[in-house]
Amino acid sequence: MKFVAEIDIMPLPALLDPQGKAVGSNMGNMGLPEIVGVRIGKHVTLEIEASDRGVAEKKVTEACEKLLVNQIMEGFSFRLEEA
Amino acid sequence: MKFVAEIDIMPLPALLDPQGKAVGSNMGNMGLPEIVGVRIGKHVTLEIEASDRGVAEKKVTEACEKLLVNQIMEGFSFRLEEA
Repeated sequence: MKFVAEIDIMPLPALLDPQGKAVGSNMGNMGLPEIVGVRIGKHVTLEIEASDRGVAEKKVTEACEKLLVNQIMEGFSFRLEEA
Repeated sequence: MKFVAEIDIMPLPALLDPQGKAVGSNMGNMGLPEIVGVRIGKHVTLEIEASDRGVAEKKVTEACEKLLVNQIMEGFSFRLEEA
């Protein structure tokens, strides 16, 4: 079976996220003061071939932990959909 | 009303995405040859104060088009949830 994974990788809540802070403080200057609390991370999509959903979840978690995510600074979550 | 927006910003399908290609071709070396088609973009979360969902959607679209997304190279989609 083929699955598509949509992975969100975000800076941990305890960390400052200077990129998000800079964008957030510019929202006011752009006429959008209603927008606050901006945080910026990465979004990764990938395709995975696996025998079932459980195996696919395990493989995606492995890919995140080994290659995609710096677990000292980032957390991740993902959704799997059958392709 | 307060909403939380989860925005995905991805390189347009027609573009090469060298970062995704590099990560994808390393999946095989990391023991994960089942994973292909990696594409890497940005994930942005933000909070927005608006009178209703329609207004919030309009403001988030405006923020994306004005500040967050380079529409020559990137496309975006978002989900809004009431906070």
